[in-house]
Amino acid sequence: MSLHEEMLQMGDRAVTAARALALCSTRKKNSILEAMADELEAQRAALKQANAVDMEAARQGGLSGAMLDRLQLTDARIDAMIKGINDVAALKDPVGQRISRWMRPNGLDIQKIRVPIGVIAIIYESRPNVTADAAVLCLKASNAVILRGGSEALRSNQAIAAALQAGGAKKGLPAHTIQLVATTDRDAVRELVQLEGRVDLAIPRGGEGLIRAVVEQAYVPVIKHYKGVCHVYVDASADGAMALDICENAKCQRPGVCNAIEKVLVHEKIAAQFLPQLAARLTARKVELRGSEAARAIVPAMKPATEEDWSAEYLDLILTVGVVKDVHAAAAHINHYGSHHSDAIVAADEAAQKAFAGEVDSATVYVNASTRFTDGGEFGMGAEIGISTDKLHARGPMALEELTTYKYVIWGRGQVRK
Amino acid sequence: MSLHEEMLQMGDRAVTAARALALCSTRKKNSILEAMADELEAQRAALKQANAVDMEAARQGGLSGAMLDRLQLTDARIDAMIKGINDVAALKDPVGQRISRWMRPNGLDIQKIRVPIGVIAIIYESRPNVTADAAVLCLKASNAVILRGGSEALRSNQAIAAALQAGGAKKGLPAHTIQLVATTDRDAVRELVQLEGRVDLAIPRGGEGLIRAVVEQAYVPVIKHYKGVCHVYVDASADGAMALDICENAKCQRPGVCNAIEKVLVHEKIAAQFLPQLAARLTARKVELRGSEAARAIVPAMKPATEEDWSAEYLDLILTVGVVKDVHAAAAHINHYGSHHSDAIVAADEAAQKAFAGEVDSATVYVNASTRFTDGGEFGMGAEIGISTDKLHARGPMALEELTTYKYVIWGRGQVRK
Repeated sequence: MSLHEEMLQMGDRAVTAARALALCSTRKKNSILEAMADELEAQRAALKQANAVDMEAARQGGLSGAMLDRLQLTDARIDAMIKGINDVAALKDPVGQRISRWMRPNGLDIQKIRVPIGVIAIIYESRPNVTADAAVLCLKASNAVILRGGSEALRSNQAIAAALQAGGAKKGLPAHTIQLVATTDRDAVRELVQLEGRVDLAIPRGGEGLIRAVVEQAYVPVIKHYKGVCHVYVDASADGAMALDICENAKCQRPGVCNAIEKVLVHEKIAAQFLPQLAARLTARKVELRGSEAARAIVPAMKPATEEDWSAEYLDLILTVGVVKDVHAAAAHINHYGSHHSDAIVAADEAAQKAFAGEVDSATVYVNASTRFTDGGEFGMGAEIGISTDKLHARGPMALEELTTYKYVIWGRGQVRK
Repeated sequence: MSLHEEMLQMGDRAVTAARALALCSTRKKNSILEAMADELEAQRAALKQANAVDMEAARQGGLSGAMLDRLQLTDARIDAMIKGINDVAALKDPVGQRISRWMRPNGLDIQKIRVPIGVIAIIYESRPNVTADAAVLCLKASNAVILRGGSEALRSNQAIAAALQAGGAKKGLPAHTIQLVATTDRDAVRELVQLEGRVDLAIPRGGEGLIRAVVEQAYVPVIKHYKGVCHVYVDASADGAMALDICENAKCQRPGVCNAIEKVLVHEKIAAQFLPQLAARLTARKVELRGSEAARAIVPAMKPATEEDWSAEYLDLILTVGVVKDVHAAAAHINHYGSHHSDAIVAADEAAQKAFAGEVDSATVYVNASTRFTDGGEFGMGAEIGISTDKLHARGPMALEELTTYKYVIWGRGQVRK
């Protein structure tokens, strides 16, 4: 069988599974999830064994320390997968909710009902825990899933997927609800994201190269979770202590994540006063500062910022600092250089707050709060599949509701169109 | 300037226009729309002159009668464009609506606000009226638009777009809000739908070839308005007179549109009684009937249906008729052969109604009503840009609300993440 035929067959099986899943009750899905968690626990030794083989091959293949760390399935990570499944079981089921309803003058009763998307393809890199995290979130929203992980994690991913399927099967999980692409052939990704009519959505999770390849090859819709080039703008009206706290938290609390800030912009009227305080606070936290000319005129110890710095995602203790004329200039800068992820203003002035909230074209815009709150859990949505930097269907934290779509069910009494 | 650079420049201009538009009030947008309608009226002679040149070139190029008819701008069609603009001005502005709001335990006030999508590319074929219809609908939702029409309609489209821009400019329409691709180079479509970061959404309107080309080439999100292979399923519990009325209306009231039915499936228990009545009713309306073996055993006058017939969109007075075991078989048939557009059940039995509504995976599912109601106007949404057969972002009638997205605006008092 050719790769193309193999992927078509996976697609067909997923469609069949999705149709069966769409009819599963919440209670049944939850009992399936609990059985999956139990099976992961029962298979703990087998998971670690499969992972040890992956780790050994990766070491021999010369993988770096950070990559090896991501690949490793420790007991703590298996615990986290199991806890994650139980957490998802506890979340409210979005499927079947009535989003809205209205009557037409001709008596038609139009109901907009939340339904599963269908078949979701997840393309990811080296972390094997994504296999469980993504699959169970999709399942709770009654979607079948086709997983394609990194080739270096294939054995670990197979062991996890097999445990999920085996556990679920005990409680009636439809066959082929969770399928893992077994070949490491790179063309499988292209085949997968071109399965129009079978795959309803592709979600790439990983570096920019992976996302770009998926976007360029896909015929099916893609939701991207691109980088986070996030900003704090400190207005002339800002409470200085609040601004310092927010900048420090957004930069330092966890610098390696997408909702950490990479830039601070300061209103020119307060720059001379605020920038030295900011430099002192962040230098104490070992942050490397890079500044525009205007910023360096005030704090000469900053390195000069290059043009590339303004759009760079460091994911590290580095921060680029600029000075702007006003809130409108800040918004224009953020719209131009940012990644439309999470941006904040610190300001007491209501006009500035409103201008920033209105003009900044980002998924999440904060007024007087840290950008670090962009997260499904922090938003109260529960687990998330990622933070969408796209504008269609899902923007910002993408959780259970965003893993559904809707259909219209229209109730009549024999109405025909005149 | 290369085509690539030219399209990049159009994209940049559209982004600038979209940022300005996002800040326009409803009142201002409506006065712009009224000025556009007035300008089309004022330019009526110029529009007809430009169209006459297109028509002459098309005749010389050997275009068929149906194509020529689509291309022609009659006074009635100009009237309809003008009325369409005034109708859109009267619609409620979706931009700025608060979709939902909730407070977090830490005091964060999360608001989900409806905002414009940004820049929308519309790729269409020969009808010049789409130039106005699509542009003003996008504009009302504060989106900039890049239009690429059929090459045979270029002069007509340019005249319409110029009138819209000139009329709008009198009331402060941002420059480049409505741009028309002036080259007839086919590569322009590819360049346009690969303008990631500039174009937020591409909507192809036209035949399957056009839609497929856009889907395969696009890097930006695409919402498809594919064909309508719509069904009526007549259950054993159906009121026979209602079923005949709905089948006749859905097939004959306007056979050339996407929400007209192409298939009827009948429960085997009532087939012997119902099919002869259906055949009599539709034959009187000059419908050509094609039947499965089981259907032809009852009404031998039907032509035999081929495998292709089950997924064909005739857009004509042709209907393929089948017999099914029950409602579940009907739903499975529709999910397999249909286009997930509009499908109806006629049934008195509540269990059958619910099974059909739950199992059929289509944008709009009707219980005891004609499929012909799938339409923005009939749904009470006003004008529509099309009927989405996609599942993400917009499904079914795609009107003003579906031409928007959302962002989260989060109001705090200095909250940082622990």
